[in-house]
Amino acid sequence: MKAINLDNGAATPVAPSVLEAMMPYFREYYGNPSSGHDLGNTPGKALTEAREKVAGLIGSSPGEIIFTSGASEANNLALKGVAAAQKKKGKHIITSAIEHFSVLNPLKTLEKEGYSVTYLPVNNYGLIDPEQLQEAISPETVLISIMTANPEIGTIQPVEEMAQIAKDKEVIFHTDATAAAGFMPLDVKKLKVDLLSLAGDQLYGPKGSGALFVRRGVRFLPLIEGGIQEGGRRAGTENVPAIVGLGEAALLAREAMDQRLDNIRAIRESLREQLFARINHLHLNGHPEKRLPQNLHISVEFVEGEALLMHLNNAGIYVSSGSTCTSQALKSSHVLEAIGLSPELAQGSLLFTLGLENSIEDVPYIVEHLAETAEKLRKMSPLYHKYLKEGS
Amino acid sequence: MKAINLDNGAATPVAPSVLEAMMPYFREYYGNPSSGHDLGNTPGKALTEAREKVAGLIGSSPGEIIFTSGASEANNLALKGVAAAQKKKGKHIITSAIEHFSVLNPLKTLEKEGYSVTYLPVNNYGLIDPEQLQEAISPETVLISIMTANPEIGTIQPVEEMAQIAKDKEVIFHTDATAAAGFMPLDVKKLKVDLLSLAGDQLYGPKGSGALFVRRGVRFLPLIEGGIQEGGRRAGTENVPAIVGLGEAALLAREAMDQRLDNIRAIRESLREQLFARINHLHLNGHPEKRLPQNLHISVEFVEGEALLMHLNNAGIYVSSGSTCTSQALKSSHVLEAIGLSPELAQGSLLFTLGLENSIEDVPYIVEHLAETAEKLRKMSPLYHKYLKEGS
Repeated sequence: MKAINLDNGAATPVAPSVLEAMMPYFREYYGNPSSGHDLGNTPGKALTEAREKVAGLIGSSPGEIIFTSGASEANNLALKGVAAAQKKKGKHIITSAIEHFSVLNPLKTLEKEGYSVTYLPVNNYGLIDPEQLQEAISPETVLISIMTANPEIGTIQPVEEMAQIAKDKEVIFHTDATAAAGFMPLDVKKLKVDLLSLAGDQLYGPKGSGALFVRRGVRFLPLIEGGIQEGGRRAGTENVPAIVGLGEAALLAREAMDQRLDNIRAIRESLREQLFARINHLHLNGHPEKRLPQNLHISVEFVEGEALLMHLNNAGIYVSSGSTCTSQALKSSHVLEAIGLSPELAQGSLLFTLGLENSIEDVPYIVEHLAETAEKLRKMSPLYHKYLKEGS
Repeated sequence: MKAINLDNGAATPVAPSVLEAMMPYFREYYGNPSSGHDLGNTPGKALTEAREKVAGLIGSSPGEIIFTSGASEANNLALKGVAAAQKKKGKHIITSAIEHFSVLNPLKTLEKEGYSVTYLPVNNYGLIDPEQLQEAISPETVLISIMTANPEIGTIQPVEEMAQIAKDKEVIFHTDATAAAGFMPLDVKKLKVDLLSLAGDQLYGPKGSGALFVRRGVRFLPLIEGGIQEGGRRAGTENVPAIVGLGEAALLAREAMDQRLDNIRAIRESLREQLFARINHLHLNGHPEKRLPQNLHISVEFVEGEALLMHLNNAGIYVSSGSTCTSQALKSSHVLEAIGLSPELAQGSLLFTLGLENSIEDVPYIVEHLAETAEKLRKMSPLYHKYLKEGS
């Protein structure tokens, strides 16, 4: 049986060269970079190099990179850390309705602590209106957190424009670039963001690796306190193998960016075209052009996404019915609600996140399976029969 | 040149069988355990098994184990998480003067937020007096955090007795067992602790792995919020390879505990005996018996520990002049200050943390090098010449 992973947003395998780069640091160069003796030398040098590589992916200085255990930690650190450092200045934070839960949940906690949070709405494509951001800023606003691109519907936000608005009002701007890093060019100087989160396991680096870019001069309080690692901004013995892997993954992503994006976009376009040509009553969610190249999000009318997922799974085709956490929690997606998708279409939604290991030659196989399964499931749907009877 | 690592407290290599257990999860079984499709199955099962293995090391239920990125995160989560959940009940916390900075620094932050913290003193051996703990508890006390054993001077605290005092007063008791886990039997049921932190990189598991035991029913707020991972208690895609490695390391430590401890204690005793027989003006720090088997901490009078460290380093013998973080920060150790060691003796201190890869046959080589180096350095010490002139 074939095994086709179209759910790379849930996890990517570690690239062979990334794993190779990591290997010496488990046993041979296992020392602690903070050690005063020679066992710390090679690991210490590896940290420095990895920091340069990650900085290179987003155009920052190496000193502006803080290694974390992943994007969730980076997002929590950004939000709670900046809020705590700025609380004398004000207690208003602006975000969007479609952020990841590692942004939304820390903000809920901050609300309980007396902060007020504005959740900007999005249009049907999932786009935030920069004018609404402008209007939401008050003298109390200390932080804006808007994702670079949404991991579910793929929509890319006008981050540069919004960060400029924040800059003009002297408000700190954070962007969660977890889904975007490695899949679109990112330059923190051009984007003018103050903080940016990314994760290794989204770009063929290891799980347990991530980074928070914090522009020099931006004040925040650490989340994990203790040792002097990461300049006192994140305590704990550095996870050297994971950090080395993240560095290598960042380098790979930067070097192969154009080719990677062209290739992935071509597969995505082929999948989209063939799906829409073969299957009726399909809806594309997210923005038709302003979207991540690896992302395709559709609603299959008259079908339950979960049932479709299970049938495809049994054929070795792995897709998601939404964000991984959301789907496991069996909650409806807050993102699909925010773009105004009807509950029926939301239930019939499928998320494809393509990856480096996908091939354009698999597209017909995927489409055929999906079409047949959708047809089978529709035959069991009372709504579909009602639709057929009453006509379009 | 020989390479003898006597600073295993800074980092241990990943055990061969641990690395072997981790390997399939980087590329073959790279799925996200939260996925709704089959790619999540094997990683999900691996998480369950690792949780059972870590629970097995400390006698807890698997559901009481929360995987973290290390002991620093576990300590921060324990302290900030319990304090936040209990703040309506009271704002007084008790700890000791010799805790790790990943306990002391979060407590400093809590002090800024209005909590009061009592720092229990220790005696010359580094022991806390349980009666002083008893007296320090007030109706406002919500949390006590006392380490199982000190990573620097090795002293093992009477945790069971202190946890019982906490239990009688209905105060939550946390212990940082980072230095102890794997090097002494730990049973949370017998110890009656409510929370316990440990790290993988102290027991031949990977860096970036750790766990917090939280007894069922103990309320705390999460530090990293977002997804549903770890039952909503710690968000972020699980670092499956690291967690698998931690599980394997915990299993190894449990299975080999007796042999491991006997062997390590024998090397430590041999080192101690030969050092004290060969070198004058040596002082043993920490408790002579109630100490971790892998730990030896001495002060070499009339010598700078840092200079000794560098000379030994050049002979391929790696020791520490204190805790890794402290030595890099070039601060004097708060632990040595707390046991009342004079600044002169504190400066001449050397920390040995033995490991599985040490051999009793290396002891004479180590002792000879140390003796010769100490003699050389003493010859350059004005204090030593003054001592020789004025006599003992």
